[in-house]
Amino acid sequence: MNVSQGVVHPVEAPPRLQTEGAGNMLLPRVRMKDLQGMPGTVGGVFLRFSQLLFAVVALSVMATITDFASVTAFCYLVAATGLQSMWSLALAIVDIYALLIGRHLQNYRAVSLFSVGDGVTSTLTFAAACASAGITVLIGNDLGACANDHCTRYETAIAMAFLSWFTALPSFLFNFWSLASR
Amino acid sequence: MNVSQGVVHPVEAPPRLQTEGAGNMLLPRVRMKDLQGMPGTVGGVFLRFSQLLFAVVALSVMATITDFASVTAFCYLVAATGLQSMWSLALAIVDIYALLIGRHLQNYRAVSLFSVGDGVTSTLTFAAACASAGITVLIGNDLGACANDHCTRYETAIAMAFLSWFTALPSFLFNFWSLASR
Repeated sequence: MNVSQGVVHPVEAPPRLQTEGAGNMLLPRVRMKDLQGMPGTVGGVFLRFSQLLFAVVALSVMATITDFASVTAFCYLVAATGLQSMWSLALAIVDIYALLIGRHLQNYRAVSLFSVGDGVTSTLTFAAACASAGITVLIGNDLGACANDHCTRYETAIAMAFLSWFTALPSFLFNFWSLASR
Repeated sequence: MNVSQGVVHPVEAPPRLQTEGAGNMLLPRVRMKDLQGMPGTVGGVFLRFSQLLFAVVALSVMATITDFASVTAFCYLVAATGLQSMWSLALAIVDIYALLIGRHLQNYRAVSLFSVGDGVTSTLTFAAACASAGITVLIGNDLGACANDHCTRYETAIAMAFLSWFTALPSFLFNFWSLASR
């Protein structure tokens, strides 16, 4: 499957970049092809690495707590951040590859796949973070049962999961916007 | 602010509907103007009333539980479904008004406002439903402390909040798509 389009053009005709693939349209249409944060851009790689970093930190903090498995929501948080980190790592590799060979990832099928994947993984991460936050607030504030330092670690992991979702959201919105604006 | 565009055209020239506002473009471009689910369509009104119904049912079920206020997440659920129902009611009224006077709601500012509002309210509803679901699973499955029928009522309210989010999501995606594809 050809998922990329070349960006190398003769320097004599830069305006053609914008009308490329536009058929009989006379007006050059402003495309979001080169906006930072899209797949295959430096901004996109930065977003992917941010997601990966926050998800891995959340996973690592959860791994230091021995008895997290007694609460379903915390198991779900571990699973969701694990999935998020794998997805972000895979997409970061794809983005870096696209950057290295100097091509854009603008194929409709590829962008659709990225968009759906980003939507699903970010929603799962957000849901897990919310469920875990609800339980941590219940234990800490409502019941006042934060005897040891577990609460702080849970809060750190949840904050990292929220940050991972927060950096995954622009990736989803950019992909969805790019899908709609073609 | 003029937030609507007329849809009444002479019957002799129906193809003009698609090229309207397209400037010098020669190809008639497929617009999502009339897709059911967009603001100002019958599908849009149906989505709004579904959101409103589910949010109001969730709110009503929570109101029958006397001691929900002891848990922060349940208070948040009540607040979020209250906000969702008010937002959906307001947008349903706007949609019905647009239908009655036979105009589309396609102004850029209006669609941006609807899109941001839908994004915020649906995210809040989803977060509240997830947090409450985490606590209900903790009480019911992990601790096995569902002595009275409160758990069933909480589960009903949470399911209704999830359904409200699920019907708010298409509204957001349609608005966002419409914003990107103009």
